[in-house]
Amino acid sequence: MLKKLSLISIACLACASTTAIAAPKNIIYMIGDGMGPAYLAAYRYYMDNPDTKVVESTVFDELWVGNASTYPDDDTVVTDSAAAATALSSTHKTYNGAIAVDHDHKSLTTMMEIAKAKGMQTGVVVTAQINHATPAGFLAHDPSRNNYNQIADDYIDNKVDGRIVADLMLGGGTSYFIREDRNLVEEFKQAGYQYTDSWTELKALNKLPVLGLFAPKGFVSALDNPEPLPLKQMTEKALELLSPAEKGFVVMIEGSQIDWCGHANDIACAMAEMHDFAEAIKVAKAYVDTHPDTLLVITADHETGGLSLGANGNYSWKRDVVQKVKHTGDYIAGQLLALKDDKVFYQAWLGLTGLELNADEQQLLSKARTEGQKALAVAVKQRIDHYSSTGWTSSGHTAADVPVLAYGADKQQFAGFQDNTDIAAKLIKFIQQK
Amino acid sequence: MLKKLSLISIACLACASTTAIAAPKNIIYMIGDGMGPAYLAAYRYYMDNPDTKVVESTVFDELWVGNASTYPDDDTVVTDSAAAATALSSTHKTYNGAIAVDHDHKSLTTMMEIAKAKGMQTGVVVTAQINHATPAGFLAHDPSRNNYNQIADDYIDNKVDGRIVADLMLGGGTSYFIREDRNLVEEFKQAGYQYTDSWTELKALNKLPVLGLFAPKGFVSALDNPEPLPLKQMTEKALELLSPAEKGFVVMIEGSQIDWCGHANDIACAMAEMHDFAEAIKVAKAYVDTHPDTLLVITADHETGGLSLGANGNYSWKRDVVQKVKHTGDYIAGQLLALKDDKVFYQAWLGLTGLELNADEQQLLSKARTEGQKALAVAVKQRIDHYSSTGWTSSGHTAADVPVLAYGADKQQFAGFQDNTDIAAKLIKFIQQK
Repeated sequence: MLKKLSLISIACLACASTTAIAAPKNIIYMIGDGMGPAYLAAYRYYMDNPDTKVVESTVFDELWVGNASTYPDDDTVVTDSAAAATALSSTHKTYNGAIAVDHDHKSLTTMMEIAKAKGMQTGVVVTAQINHATPAGFLAHDPSRNNYNQIADDYIDNKVDGRIVADLMLGGGTSYFIREDRNLVEEFKQAGYQYTDSWTELKALNKLPVLGLFAPKGFVSALDNPEPLPLKQMTEKALELLSPAEKGFVVMIEGSQIDWCGHANDIACAMAEMHDFAEAIKVAKAYVDTHPDTLLVITADHETGGLSLGANGNYSWKRDVVQKVKHTGDYIAGQLLALKDDKVFYQAWLGLTGLELNADEQQLLSKARTEGQKALAVAVKQRIDHYSSTGWTSSGHTAADVPVLAYGADKQQFAGFQDNTDIAAKLIKFIQQK
Repeated sequence: MLKKLSLISIACLACASTTAIAAPKNIIYMIGDGMGPAYLAAYRYYMDNPDTKVVESTVFDELWVGNASTYPDDDTVVTDSAAAATALSSTHKTYNGAIAVDHDHKSLTTMMEIAKAKGMQTGVVVTAQINHATPAGFLAHDPSRNNYNQIADDYIDNKVDGRIVADLMLGGGTSYFIREDRNLVEEFKQAGYQYTDSWTELKALNKLPVLGLFAPKGFVSALDNPEPLPLKQMTEKALELLSPAEKGFVVMIEGSQIDWCGHANDIACAMAEMHDFAEAIKVAKAYVDTHPDTLLVITADHETGGLSLGANGNYSWKRDVVQKVKHTGDYIAGQLLALKDDKVFYQAWLGLTGLELNADEQQLLSKARTEGQKALAVAVKQRIDHYSSTGWTSSGHTAADVPVLAYGADKQQFAGFQDNTDIAAKLIKFIQQK
């Protein structure tokens, strides 16, 4: 027995050291903003096939190898997306709000800048504005995430060996990139970038560099968006365009609005964003299957909302209630607000949520309508949470550890518990081996 | 590069298959009742050394290899401890409340019964009554977890090849084992078991079989218990007594009351139980270091309370507030209840919690005092939650996936995402290889 065991350890050590040597050519780094572990469990039960006894695993489950802590470099324990993005892009902890700078506002080198210096091609794909905290933490340097215009300017002004850092940028943000004081879109065109703001044109793009901005700021929420699976669509195009990169590529793909649904405590909204992110992950996983020299790593920057499945003493979570909801709470409130007749109002509610309410609850909703869209949206989500037994503790972030998923030859490097800065350190080590 | 990669996969496959063959002689199976992932993060920050920049890893972090789903065999998604214990002991999903029986109340064979049939020695070590849902799911069969007396009877009546299933039982429960209608302690003595109800005598025990019952029902909560680290003490003795087992042993060691603190939404209570569980894990880990033919697997049956670090929009969790709390909310309320003078009352509060309150909050507490101990305990915990930004969504369980920790040569078998029944299946496979 002992002999057997010692043999194993030798085999495993050999295995580990071999993988350490084999640096991948390409890195696909996906971040589910706000995607704490409860979001993965919620999505699994949300997608479950009720005709089978077992709950089917999701693509998240298939790739789950570890977990990571996310605390920032202050005494709060709870990080924001800017400090987390800096940790995930540069290996450095910093203060909440910081975009790849330290406490002295000194720039912290990001993996995209290192990759660019190595001659790799780089990109970001997001459903928020592309100068939002997470992508900004990979491409810019600024003392505050709120300096949206300065951050946008940095996307073209911040150069590595005279070259713009990102070869591919897909997301939202025309209101920051086409301004009266500066038209960055024109400047990117001058610099040789193909630019598009249309989903049809996106499909036609055939070479880098590329800038695609499909909304003034963030995209319409996935649950309300007539454009199906926007993150999946952009991910397919991004990998097609980056694939020929001779020295390989690093792309950061963010499910940006999982977090926004969490802030809104909107479970149906969150499940729709998780679905678009899951479909994008499937595209990336398929790419690794056909390109075994590519590493896929997926994590979250933090948890949002303190989501729980089961609440108020109820030992149940009703996914069928969530599945019937057709739009976000804000959208539903917007639709209902104008309907003054209570019968018409309730019929519209039934059409939008499929959720039957008792007389008291109908009155409660009608009353909320008189208090405006915001109050009505809260009341709408409270009914959905009540009947699905969905729990929330906050409109902000929490310090929950986040899932770490990986796929490809080097996936074991990301197994077990680690800090978010460790994930960046492992990826940068691979890039530096070029 | 490709050649390198293929070599790796071969190496890793070899490694995996070799580990699959090497069945451990002994299995230490530890269950943190209610220990969802947020409890591991909370304990890490709670134990952090403020003099260092980094947050130190805990023993939980060192051993963390995977995560598991916990849903029961009904449409609730949220399990109770009985159905979860049945899944973790027998590989079978069942209904909430079931103790190792299926929907038709047919007994489901547990790993303890299989181990006993293989001539291994078996044990359970808990801080609840030893006939509580989790240990019962390993040693008894009953349609309802609430049949405490029948379950206790089953501990001696349920035999494998004419032998009592457990060789070692340490925990609470004299009120169920010494009854007017039946004295099980006497029956165990007749069957050759050494019995003790004293912590001093426990140290002197030197051979199996053993029954130790140190409380009428569950132990006093770790935070209020004058006996230091009871689970750690029992774990040390259990491993000492089981170690000589010629054909190996299987022991289930439960941090039973993490769950009870979760139900009470009492964060200081939960951290004290996590600490005793962590210290017990360190003992088990050290045992594996000196006995490499032993496998240590640690998980939870479910999450309790919907715990979050950070709440109500606050981007912070204040571990120092929690650290200063000297007793559970119920204990503090019991101490404060009799103090009618507001000044004396508030001084006692300060001594018990170290938490300064404003005038309004002091009045609020004084008012709660007049409403009785239960109302006062709630008010006490609300102040602690408020100042530490600790969030809860329920007095019950949630469907969060639970951590899976492992240590020993076969630990990789438990890596990644799995269902709670998979954990039992892997362990039973090892036992059946005997």
